[in-house]
This record gives sequence, structure tokens and C-alpha cells, in this order.
Amino acid sequence: MSKRILRVNMTKLEAKFEDLPADFVALGGRALTSTIVAKEVDPLCHPLGANNKLVFAPGLVTGTKAPTSGRLSVGGKSPLTGGIKEANVGTNFAQKLGRMRIAAVVVEGMHKGDDYYLLKIKNDGTEFMKANKWSNKGLYDTYKELYKEFGNKVGICGVGIAAEISGAASGVCFNDPEGLPSRYAGRGGLGAVMASKGLKFIIVDETGAPGVEILNEEAFNMGVKKLWNALTTHDVTKPGGALNSFGTSVLVNIINEAGGLPQRNFSSGQDDRSEKVSGEVKADEIKKRGGVRPHFCSPGCVIQCSEVWTKPGGKDPMGVLEYESLWALGPNCGIYNLDDIGELNRACNDLGLDTIEAGGMMGVAMEGGLAEFGDGKKALKLIEEIKNKTPTGRILANGTAFTAQALGVTRVPVVKGQSLPAYDPRAIKGIGVTYATTPQGADHTAGYAIATEIMGVGGTADPKDPKKAELSRNLQVATAAIDATGYCLFIAFAILDIPEGLEGVVDTLNGVLGTSLTVDDVPGYGMQIINTEREFNKAAGFTDKHDRLPEFFLKEKLAPHNEVFNVTDEELDKVWGA
Amino acid sequence: MSKRILRVNMTKLEAKFEDLPADFVALGGRALTSTIVAKEVDPLCHPLGANNKLVFAPGLVTGTKAPTSGRLSVGGKSPLTGGIKEANVGTNFAQKLGRMRIAAVVVEGMHKGDDYYLLKIKNDGTEFMKANKWSNKGLYDTYKELYKEFGNKVGICGVGIAAEISGAASGVCFNDPEGLPSRYAGRGGLGAVMASKGLKFIIVDETGAPGVEILNEEAFNMGVKKLWNALTTHDVTKPGGALNSFGTSVLVNIINEAGGLPQRNFSSGQDDRSEKVSGEVKADEIKKRGGVRPHFCSPGCVIQCSEVWTKPGGKDPMGVLEYESLWALGPNCGIYNLDDIGELNRACNDLGLDTIEAGGMMGVAMEGGLAEFGDGKKALKLIEEIKNKTPTGRILANGTAFTAQALGVTRVPVVKGQSLPAYDPRAIKGIGVTYATTPQGADHTAGYAIATEIMGVGGTADPKDPKKAELSRNLQVATAAIDATGYCLFIAFAILDIPEGLEGVVDTLNGVLGTSLTVDDVPGYGMQIINTEREFNKAAGFTDKHDRLPEFFLKEKLAPHNEVFNVTDEELDKVWGA
Repeated sequence: MSKRILRVNMTKLEAKFEDLPADFVALGGRALTSTIVAKEVDPLCHPLGANNKLVFAPGLVTGTKAPTSGRLSVGGKSPLTGGIKEANVGTNFAQKLGRMRIAAVVVEGMHKGDDYYLLKIKNDGTEFMKANKWSNKGLYDTYKELYKEFGNKVGICGVGIAAEISGAASGVCFNDPEGLPSRYAGRGGLGAVMASKGLKFIIVDETGAPGVEILNEEAFNMGVKKLWNALTTHDVTKPGGALNSFGTSVLVNIINEAGGLPQRNFSSGQDDRSEKVSGEVKADEIKKRGGVRPHFCSPGCVIQCSEVWTKPGGKDPMGVLEYESLWALGPNCGIYNLDDIGELNRACNDLGLDTIEAGGMMGVAMEGGLAEFGDGKKALKLIEEIKNKTPTGRILANGTAFTAQALGVTRVPVVKGQSLPAYDPRAIKGIGVTYATTPQGADHTAGYAIATEIMGVGGTADPKDPKKAELSRNLQVATAAIDATGYCLFIAFAILDIPEGLEGVVDTLNGVLGTSLTVDDVPGYGMQIINTEREFNKAAGFTDKHDRLPEFFLKEKLAPHNEVFNVTDEELDKVWGA
Repeated sequence: MSKRILRVNMTKLEAKFEDLPADFVALGGRALTSTIVAKEVDPLCHPLGANNKLVFAPGLVTGTKAPTSGRLSVGGKSPLTGGIKEANVGTNFAQKLGRMRIAAVVVEGMHKGDDYYLLKIKNDGTEFMKANKWSNKGLYDTYKELYKEFGNKVGICGVGIAAEISGAASGVCFNDPEGLPSRYAGRGGLGAVMASKGLKFIIVDETGAPGVEILNEEAFNMGVKKLWNALTTHDVTKPGGALNSFGTSVLVNIINEAGGLPQRNFSSGQDDRSEKVSGEVKADEIKKRGGVRPHFCSPGCVIQCSEVWTKPGGKDPMGVLEYESLWALGPNCGIYNLDDIGELNRACNDLGLDTIEAGGMMGVAMEGGLAEFGDGKKALKLIEEIKNKTPTGRILANGTAFTAQALGVTRVPVVKGQSLPAYDPRAIKGIGVTYATTPQGADHTAGYAIATEIMGVGGTADPKDPKKAELSRNLQVATAAIDATGYCLFIAFAILDIPEGLEGVVDTLNGVLGTSLTVDDVPGYGMQIINTEREFNKAAGFTDKHDRLPEFFLKEKLAPHNEVFNVTDEELDKVWGA
């Protein structure tokens, strides 16, 4: 059995397997979602109309034993940015698709009428079922019911109430290893795209799957070993290392110390209270409560940065509380209480909201007077407005820029309509260059300059040096390539510093594909993805003028460094040579 | 006294007269607002931030005895489109500025804090007063109070509650001859720009004004005569002609007959019930009720297309009920009852809403389920949500595209974020070319192809012929020039057909300016304005991809002609030779 595409027509409620075209064989993950979206979606279509498509693609090595490779890309035209979108998630759902040799699921058309559907994908066929009984409900309860109905071994993808009301802040939800709805391809409103088509859930049952085809076992095994060695050696990724011990939230103290942890809708870069919600404090608390830490988001991960956060006493396991979520719903809202933040994160997961967009939204909502900064209880009530589909809920579900416009707030931390993540670009310039210039809208993962600027990975760079075009470009290009492989971006910490690790990645690709790529092929591969995305965006109306940060970052100084974002337009345009 | 600019700094609460720069002397109205905005406003600034400016400029002949020349341009960066905006209004406020030799009022900066201010402009000075007591109130009552306080002879510009809540659908209001708040520079959300600066009202007292300087009386008088002759001869503009007898609403039956009167959020182009709200029926009704018809919007108008609409029994005079307003709040909402439409129009005037944007918004709100099509009472309740500043009100006050996003409606009749006026581009292609390509966002007045396609003015053209780039361009260029003069666009009906009329316009300009322009200079003058605006928009991130109609006009056939908008992208790009 060769690799295949599952084409799902929601207008006709038909799903058909097609052979993966020969020129797509070397494409996986983001390379495949962006290629299909660029080829098949009119850049000027309405993102919530019948002519948008939603594409799911596991990475090239996803489903193999390659370490830390359980990633899935979800792509489409974004209702949040109006441009192309790839949102990335770690989940065994991805690995199941990989082992079924499904290179992509392409959801197209639109069901007319109010019914929601569930699509069950088995190795040898598909089935549509009405899903109305699971609409208008929280995802925690719903996932429990779905696992009861479909068995514990399936993977589940779903969208929540935020998507049902077309919220541009809605993400696409995936199960974590415990079956909780805590893993998200969160960004860019792709949840609303899925819901707009009448598709509420995808259940993947891999029974009988042949596994990922590996054309050169020797190369593959060699690659696995090299990469495993790198991951288990590097300080950031090794067992007992920073990520393994404290999770992504290890960054709270680090970025706060650097003066770049945005507080209260990006009005300061530092607050002593941030320490109360640090990764270190959280890890202690998880231990006390009886949560789980470390933990993996998908089997086969060496890094294991994940965790299971719970209410006090180990009750109501929620899944992971990541750094970005914790920051967005915490310090960015002036909230320095892990339980408040945890409940906000749980509410976002339950409703199908991107936590970064939700936290950005809450920050402007607080600036706009809907709640006081720091009032976690009121923030939770506001999130519940989405659950109740109130007019306020409809505003909030559309994210940061939308909420700002509704409330007349002019300090709006978005690029291309998407909310900024957890690093203030005035304190750390390179990440600002990435925010501004990635085709994805403000996105730290698109070119994680923090690695070099703050963590000294892949070299060092002064965070305050505004010459960061080259650093950001190199990282963006490498990231796009990694996003195609199915490896977690966090392998970058190791492979940027340990050349054998990068070789190992390429070896595993050669193993799967039967190719003879070298590490020198990586930048070209990544650049091709970026070019595809930029071409789509250009056809959707984007120009270099959209590769800019919002005005207030250029005018308003950030404490404690009292700097503005002083990267010139020329430097920004140098990223892609515009 | 030479012409001057009044520069109003709202940060410092200072207003200073400056001499009009020599290179601005030949610029008036839209030529001057667009030039100042392009020169002084960062195209990437937040439209509701301190760095946007709001510019008021009467036309070059405004304030003279030239017929039908009481027009004012209001310009700035639009919070609705994100591009440059010129909104145009007929009001004696314009004439007063002209006679005071104030070529432009430039409002800049932003008052910090919650206070609203009133700026009184006298011939020899200015005064700021707190205006908080008139905030959060309807404009009908407020204008009454303002006239009581400042006397009956002043002109009043103001913004309403819709602007106070930053609504992108808010316009800038001006007094009509009776002092009612019925004349609007409505489009593009400039009301919110004014309110964002803390400026609530401008009162103009022209006592002691020197009058418009006329450098060549002979040329001027000759021009006035030629133009007067043309206006009083042409069937559309003459006394007892179409506009004079029935007002702009004469178009209801004509456009409905042509199959281009959008019904129920642009889902049909014709409905027999439209006749019930026609200009003919309305004129009869006004006569019965004891309203006024014909009537002028500003003194010196020969055409006199305006009116005073009232409640039954002649009560509560409202001001004019224009064709666009009547259509937007009527057939576009499935409402075919003049009293319902009148009350909706009154509510829009009272709150400071652009009636076209409000009607477009109501159409998508009805499609989104907030009310049934045709339910005028519910529509009025929805408008009242704005008055009450509820979350629903904050959605609606932001216009058509915003409301559509909040409700998940994907049939969104906007270009560059601005709601389409009262002609369906699938039935009448040339006006669609104007909607798509004008720098202003969907705007019929920017290049009124209806004149030629439907009314046979300036030649004839088959409405269904999709080759309309040249027609639209010529009209857009001529319109930009007219918008600089201060003449009402409606003189175009006469001067497109009667060459002496156009000569008369140029003669009056030569009279005022002491120049020796010819009719051949008009296109170049107009093109310069368009180029200035397009350059601003380009710097704000606009491309040819924004010169397109929304997807559904290209996919969904319109009854009764069952046509889509079939003008090619190539034809659209031919307008400006992109």
C-alpha cells in the first residue's frame, strides 16, 4: 500500500482515498498542508465558506520510532489572518494517520444545514455519523463520551463551542495520551474552518494499519540513533534537563528576568510576581497535588516536556499547562495564581479556544474595561460568555484584534490579525522580526529567535541588537523544514548545537523516503515551503506592509529596558529580500 | 486675509491658524483632505490613535453664490477600511468655513482622559469648551440644545454615541438648514476618529467672515451663469425634474425595474414591494403629512433634491430620507414600510451612524438570525442596542463586515471593509467596477456608473456589459475633481451632457483662483487626487487584490437576471493600469 490522501467532501458527505501524487511523496506536515492549500484554495475565498479547505498532514517520519516525532500539521486559509495557516500539534492522532499511510486528510466543501458530523477513519474505509448530540457541549465531557463510544485506542480530533460560533480564536483539538482534549493545533482559527464545514469530530482507528513504509532501514536506524544521542545529551532536551524537569514554563523566570515577559497587555516586560507562576513552582505543585510530570504529548518522545495539571488534591486532570498558555492567561492578564490560570486554560480547552489568542483577547478585554487586570474569577466568567454564546462571547471568541475593535482599544498586540505570543519584541528584537515577517501571523514557533537570543542555542545574539533579519530567516527556514518532518520543533535545541543530531534527522528522512538528502538540502526544502506560503499570502493581498509590528510597539517604551521596537523596516524587509 | 488652515491639537487643546501653503491654494475639498492626510498621516498608524488626523475642507467655490456648491470633504485614515477616506456632505457648515477663508481644519493628537470637548471656531479665534453634558445623548435633542446655546446662525458638526463607542460605522454629522442632525459625511467611520480625539462638536460662527475671495469676478459670474443654465435645463437636475420632484429616491423604481435593487442582504435584485417605498410614493406622503419637498441641503442649490420627512401628521421632522438610506434600511432588510424606514433612519441620525453601513450591517444581522427580514420593529430595537452600548450594540456599531464575522455570516457585501451601496453589481456591472477599484472602499459616489448605464447620462452603456474599466475610470477621475470644487456631485448629470455646464464649472474655478484652467485640465486634476489616495493605500498595505468584490458576487447568481459579477480581474486592473 502506497501513501494516500483522504479527500473528504462535506457537501456530498463522501470520503475517498486517492493515491498520493508522485510529486507530493517528499512532502509531509507543513510542506504538504501548505502545498495543497496553495494549490487548491482560492486565496480570496471566504475562509468560512465552501471554497476553503482544511488539510491535516502528519510529518514524514510521524508514526515511526523516530524520537519526538508525533506532530501533525493542520492547514487552510485562516479566518483570523486572512492568509495561509499551518497550526502544529503533538498527538498520537498524528502517529495513527502516519501508520495508516494517510499523508493528508483534505476536508472540502460544506454541509448545508445545521447538522454536525463525525467522520470515522479506519484503515480500510470511512464512515460519517451525525454528531449533533456532541455539539454545544464542553470537550472534556465530550471526549470522555467519545472514548466510551469508540474505544480507548482511537485518536480524536474535534472542535468546540468557540468553533461552532465561528470564532476566529478557535483551534482544532486533539487528544493527549490520557484522552483529554488538551492538545491543540490552536492558532489561526482553523477550528472555525472545520466547524463551518459541518465537521465536528474525526475519529481515527488504526486497526490493521501497515505502519510507515521505510525504504532504507539502515539509514533510518542510524538516524534515529544519532538524533536520540543528541536529544539525550543536550542540556535543554535531555532527561532531567530544563524542558524535562520544568516543561516549557521553565521560560517564565528566564524571560521575566530578561525583561521580555509581557505583563498586562504588553504594558511592562517584568513583574516580580511572575515567579509565583514559574515552571519551577508549577513542577513542585504538580508533585504535591499528584499530577504527572514529566510526561509526553505523544508516545516516543525523548524530551517529555509535558505534564498533567490538576486541581488541588490531584482532581480533574486537565492536561498540560504550557508556557505560552500560562503567560497569556496569567501575567498578560495580571494574573499570578496557578489555579486561576489553570481554570482559564481548562475553560479554553473545553471550549476549543487557542490559549494564546484567548489570553491576548483577555488582555485587551481587561484594558477595555470588561474586567480588572488580575481578576481571574471575572476572566473565567468572560470565557463562559463564549460557552453561553452571548454577544460578548461572540466578540471574545473572535480574538484579540476583534475584541479590541469592539471595545475601542488601540494597543492591539497582533500581526496579520494574530495575537503575539509570550515574548515582548521590544526587549527581544529577533523574535519580533519573526512575528513581523512569518507568513503565519505573530508566531514564536515560526522562527524561535529566543533560542539564540536568550538561551544561547545555535550561537548567541544580544537580544537588544536590532539586526536580526538573518537570524530570523535562518530559523524560519529551518523551522519550516522541521515542521515537514513531523519532528517536534524542540529537537532544534539539540540539533542546532549538535551537528550529528541534524544529520540524524536527515538520515531518518532518507530512511523513510529512500532518498540521499544531505544537511545542505534542508534550507532549500524549508525555503520552498515559505515561498509557497508567501505566494499564497501575496495572492490574498499581503505585502511587506503587513510584515510590521503594530504601531504601539514602535512608540511606547517597555519597562524595564525602556526600549521600543527599533528594528527598521529595511531590516524587516531583508528577511525575505523584498 | 488669505486662506488659512486651522490646526487643532487635541493633546494640548490648542487651535492655531496657519497660512495655507502656496502649493495648496488650488486644492479644495477632497483634493485638500487627501493631500494633507497623505502628507501628514502614517499609513500604518492606528486609525483611532493619536497619530491619525481628521481633516475638514470645504470645496474651492464653497461659500460663493455658485449654484449647488455647499459641499464639505472630511478626510482621514478610515477605521473601517484601513485606507484613506474622504466622506462628503452638503451643509451650510461648509459654506461658513469657505466664507471664513478656512481652507481646512486639521484635527490632530488626542485628548487624554474621558472628557469630550467642543471647539468653537469664530472668524478671529477659537475656544474649547467641555462637552461632556452632551455626550451619551441623541443628536436630535443635542442639536436643539446646541442651537439654543450658540444661536441659530451657527453651523454644527458633531459625532454621536456610535462614535463614542468607537464604532467603525459612525459618521460625522452636520446640520441641515433647519438645524437637524440629518446631513452626514457618513462613510468610513470618521465619526469614531473625531470621538477618539476627544472632540465631540465643532461650532462655526461666521460673524465677520470676509467671504470667499474671487480673483476674477467676470470669469466667475460667467461660469455661474453657464452652470445655472445647464442645471436648470437638464431633465435630471432642473426644477420639476426627476431629482427635484422625487429626490434621490426616484431611483427606487428605476433600479428595481433594472433588477439591481438589492433585496434582503443582496439575495435578489428585484421585489415588487419596493414600489411601496419609492420616491414617488414618498413624495406623495410628504405632501400629505406636511413635510417639505423639494428642499435644499445647503443654500444656493438649484437642484433641491432634499426634503423633510416627518412622522404622520407632520410631527417630528427628521430631515432627508435619501435613496441610499431608504434602500439600506428598507429593501436590503426586506422592509417595505416608509414609517419603519424613517424611524430607522432617524435612529441612525440620532446615534451618528452611516445609514448605508447601518443598513448593510442590519442585512447581515438579519441573515445571521438577530431579526427576521422585514421586521422593522426588531431592527429598531437592534439599533437601540448601540444607544445602550450593549455588547450587541458594540458589534453592530462596527458595521457590516464586523457584524458578519461576529455572527458567522459569509455573504458579506463589502469592499475594503466598507458596505456596498444600493446597486447590485451583478445586474449593473460598471458600478461594481467602481465599488471594487475606488480607493475609498465600496462607494457609488466615487464613480457613478449608474448615470450612464441606467440613466443614459454621459452616453449610454449596457448594464450587463462587463467591459467597464474605462467608464468607471473616467467617472472616478471626474468625480475626484468635482469633489475638490465643492460642487455637489449631482451637477455631473447636467455637465456630462451639456458641455457649457462643464465650462461653467471651470470658469468659476478660474474666477476664484485667478487661473486659466480649461476643461482639458479636469482629468489631470482628478487623477492627481486618485493617485495620492492610491499611494496612501499602497503604503497602508493595499494591492490590486483588494480591488475585488467579495466571493459571493462571483459565485451566486442574482435574480431576476441570474447573473454573477463577471467582470474579469484583468478588466478591474485596467482601471488604474495595474
